Order: sequence, then C-alpha cells, then structure tokens
Amino acid sequence: MQDLELTILGSSSAIPVGNRSPTAQFLTLSGRHFLIDCGEGTQVKLRQHNIGFGRINHIFISHLHGDHFYGLVPLLTSLHLLDREKEMHLYGPEDLEQAVKAMLDLSGARLRFPLIFHHTSPNSKKRIFEDEALKVYSFPLKHSMPCCGFLFEEKPRPRNMRKDKLEEYNIPVAEIRSIKKGANWENENGEEIANEELTTAAPDPLSYAFCTDTAPVKDLDQYFQNPDLLYHEATFTEELKKRAKQTQHSTAQQAASIAHLVKARHLLLGHFSVRFNDLTPLQEEAAAVFKNSYLALEGHTFRLNRKSKELEINA
Amino acid sequence: MQDLELTILGSSSAIPVGNRSPTAQFLTLSGRHFLIDCGEGTQVKLRQHNIGFGRINHIFISHLHGDHFYGLVPLLTSLHLLDREKEMHLYGPEDLEQAVKAMLDLSGARLRFPLIFHHTSPNSKKRIFEDEALKVYSFPLKHSMPCCGFLFEEKPRPRNMRKDKLEEYNIPVAEIRSIKKGANWENENGEEIANEELTTAAPDPLSYAFCTDTAPVKDLDQYFQNPDLLYHEATFTEELKKRAKQTQHSTAQQAASIAHLVKARHLLLGHFSVRFNDLTPLQEEAAAVFKNSYLALEGHTFRLNRKSKELEINA
Repeated sequence: MQDLELTILGSSSAIPVGNRSPTAQFLTLSGRHFLIDCGEGTQVKLRQHNIGFGRINHIFISHLHGDHFYGLVPLLTSLHLLDREKEMHLYGPEDLEQAVKAMLDLSGARLRFPLIFHHTSPNSKKRIFEDEALKVYSFPLKHSMPCCGFLFEEKPRPRNMRKDKLEEYNIPVAEIRSIKKGANWENENGEEIANEELTTAAPDPLSYAFCTDTAPVKDLDQYFQNPDLLYHEATFTEELKKRAKQTQHSTAQQAASIAHLVKARHLLLGHFSVRFNDLTPLQEEAAAVFKNSYLALEGHTFRLNRKSKELEINA
Repeated sequence: MQDLELTILGSSSAIPVGNRSPTAQFLTLSGRHFLIDCGEGTQVKLRQHNIGFGRINHIFISHLHGDHFYGLVPLLTSLHLLDREKEMHLYGPEDLEQAVKAMLDLSGARLRFPLIFHHTSPNSKKRIFEDEALKVYSFPLKHSMPCCGFLFEEKPRPRNMRKDKLEEYNIPVAEIRSIKKGANWENENGEEIANEELTTAAPDPLSYAFCTDTAPVKDLDQYFQNPDLLYHEATFTEELKKRAKQTQHSTAQQAASIAHLVKARHLLLGHFSVRFNDLTPLQEEAAAVFKNSYLALEGHTFRLNRKSKELEINA
C-alpha cells in the first residue's frame, strides 16, 4: 500500500461502450477511502476490483448528469440488502439529497443505515471534510449544469524524531509527541536544544485534485496549486475543440495547459469520448504540452509515495 | 433466426455479483423485439451481445425494485445522446411514469424522442400490446410490492396453401389470402371445395410467459396455459423455503410445480440468489419435478421454432 492509491473504475464519457464504464474512482489517501463519482455499474466494478463495500463511507458526486451518479442508489440499495448499519456520507450538489431520496422512495426502500448529506457550493471553494490527517474541498467547475471538482489534501505531517538525539539527550518517550510537533527540549543542564537539531522534516503532504466535467477554468489555480496528482477531463482532441466548447468539455491539450497552470506533478486524462477507439492521440496531445501526462484507463491503479513522489502505474 | 429467441442479459437477484447481472432479457417473437426488465447495466449488456439499440421500441418493467429497472433511465439517456427520435413504449406499473420523469428531470434532460407509457394493472390480467401478429398481456404476481408477469402470445397463423391444389383447381393468386384464412373455393363447375382439402394447418402459435419476482401463485393457470416457454424465478432451493416465503420469492421446486400447473413445455429458472456459487442444485431440484427445466444463465440464448417446439440453447 502506497501513501496515495487511485483505482479507475470507469473513465468513459456519457455514452457507454461495451468495455468502458462511466466515471467512478476509488481513492485511498492517508489510509482514508473515498469513492469519487458513481456512474452506472460502479458496484459491479468495485466487486471486480475486490474493493470491499465496507471500505466505502464517503462518496463524492461532482454533478447530476447520469453518467456520474446513476450507480449511486443501486449501490446504496445493495449495502442495505447486505445489512449495513454504519452511516454513509454523501457529498454533492444540494439536489443530490432530493434525487437520492426520491429514487429510494420509488422502491419503497427504507435504508437500514443513515445517509448524511454534505452540500457542495456551485460558486465558491468549500471545505466539505476534515479529520486529523486531511481535508477535502469542493470547488466550482464550468459545465452545462452546476458541477464541482474535489481537492483531497493531506495536512502537514509531524516531523521525524532523530533516534540518535533521543539517546544523546536521554529524552523520555512521553516527550516525543510534542517534539515531533515542533517543541524544543531543555536538557539536564537547563540548556534549550532547538527542534531542528532533534528532528528531520516530514515529507511534504500529498494532494489529489479531481476535475470533471468541465471546460478549461482559466483561473483554476485560485482554488489549488501544486497537486501531486491531477485528474482532468479530456473528452476530445484539439481537432474537436469546437465540439468541446459547445458541450462544455475540455480537449487533451487544454487539460495539459491546466496542469501547467496549477503546477501539477502528474496529470491523468479521462472522460474519453466514445468516438475514440484508440486513446493514444489524447495522451500524445497532452504530453506534447505537459510531459507527465497519462491515460486514466479503466482498471488501472496509480500509486504515489510521499518520499519519491514518483507515479507507479499498475495495469 | 428462429421463431422465438430469448437472450438472457441478466438473471441475478438483487445483490449483484461481479459476473452476474440483475434481471434483463431480450425477446424476439414473430419478428418483434421486446426488452423485458432493465436492471442496472442493461445497456452495456446489450452492447456486449451486439443487440442494436434501434431494435428496442418496447420495454416491459415488472415492478419497481431497483434490480429490475435501475438501468432504464441510463438506457433512455444514452438513446437521447445517440439522437434517437422514434417513440419508445414503456409498459409497467403506474408509478413507473413518475419515476422515469423524476429521474430525467434531475439531470435536466429533455429527451429528443417521445415516451409512451402503458400501465399494467396490479389486480387483473390486462392486454397491454396488440398488433397483427401477437398480443402481450400483463398479469398480477405475488410480491412485496405490486408486480406483474408478462405473456407474449402469437396470434393463430394463416393456414398453409397446398401448391398441388393451386394447380389442380387453377386458383388465381389473388384468392390465396382468403383461402389461407379459411375460405372454401368454388371451382369452374360450381363445385365447392372444402378449405381442409386446399390447405394444411399452420403450426400452433408460440407463447412465452415471464414470471418474476413472485411467491408461487397457486392459480396462475387462470391467466395463461400451455406456454411454450416459461421463465419463472427460482431465487432459492427448498432448503431455504422459509426465506423464500418471507421475501415473497420462489424455490426451484415451486417454480417446477408452477410449470406443471400451467402445462408449460419448457421451464427457465432465474433470479438466482447471490448465495449460490454453483447453480446446479437449483436445476436439479426443478428437474426432479419438471423434466424440461433449464437455468437461464446470463449470456445464453434460447431458441424455439414453431414446428418442432424443441428448445435450442446457445451458450
């Protein structure tokens, strides 16, 4: 298990092809699990990738186009049938709550477990989740209906204690926690030892940004910068730029420009139009502008560790 | 192409397993095409089986449990994106109309093509479709919510003209149609030739009955008899009879008894509980009571021709 792990359950645009599923991703960061978007058939994809349903406690929905949420109520219904009792947190546009409740009502379903809705804001960046290890924000994208991206951001981690200094100054174990947080240490002679001598810096925290569906947002860097991993939709190639504009989607080249704008470390392209049998042109178009560009192919897992920040791809 | 052809797109019960899909079937009878139930992922299954979306003009929904209709709105949405303009006929419980419209509204979708709803009746047999070649009826089943089965019944076919008699009596081509419908023929000498001498009987019309989800309906034979093919749910084995009763489902043995009751020619078992990895016990249990019992396995196509009425199975 790496520090960040992202499994692509689907990365097709609206019209499904036999072997390509609509949008859904499973993210693990700081040991927390997040399901991002939930197109039709997501529960089957989760099973096929041996991702246990019990690990899903937070589901993020970008917007209410069917290819991003038609799998949500079917998944919730299955969890009910599997006797889930633990609460489920749902993050999405305000209408998501009404949509989910209406669909459940139709089947006369009363879920055994509570649903807790957290609304994204269509016009501004909003913190929608926070715990000890990380924060999640939603931010507005530019699509034909209200749509938000999501930023998953680890908090700065405690500094690492130097073992040699523990011995040298005979520091009690009980003090380690506060030293790792930055405290200095007073030794037996009353001398103050600076924290910098006692510890080494922790690796930078990791972050992941998810952006679909959207036309290029020219000032996206106001919402986040320097993501280690950026998923950005690339529905079309530049040849179809006009069509991209009409439908409020992006080209691969535009996605790459956005990666530059926000100073991303690695770029994943997704939400591929059904018209591309061969996706290579999308990758090549993006890589010409932004070198670290990859196709977010269904079934692939992308891994990053905090130290090297190198991307490992498991096909 | 046989006279009746049924492709199983899914035959799992509510909780999906990686390799088993919820209920959906594609029926061809008298050259007409019918989609029966539409669980999550049906559109992908249609693609995988090379069943062109253009052939789907009539969709039948048994009831509003998610595993029987969660794939419907996603399919309609895709047809819209694919520029369909032809009207679509939907047959199901009265609430289906509200359900479909509510789900489409959420996404702000305005379909390019008209939806025409035909309501089934929860309490009585009802003719819901008729054309030159066949009739379709809905009839009430016994489940935890209003649920209907469907009977697809060919009309009696015209008799076959004997070619030798055409020549013997020098019958003009224009007269053949009425003779095939049963008319006698007056020859040049004014003698009346009986229709039985001029024609041979057409093979009996074919019929298909679809029954899921349901507890055994003790008087199901009031709605239909002698179906050439009967699909009946067999969620459990007899060992789990109590569970079947609680959940208003049937065991394989009960499905076989129903096949006897209605004098079916062939029985297909389906709606298998997720607990059975091996489905053989369900088939064996049914076959002990009703010999011509088969598993309606996903991906299998069942074919019947009018003359032999033998079942051909393509795995």
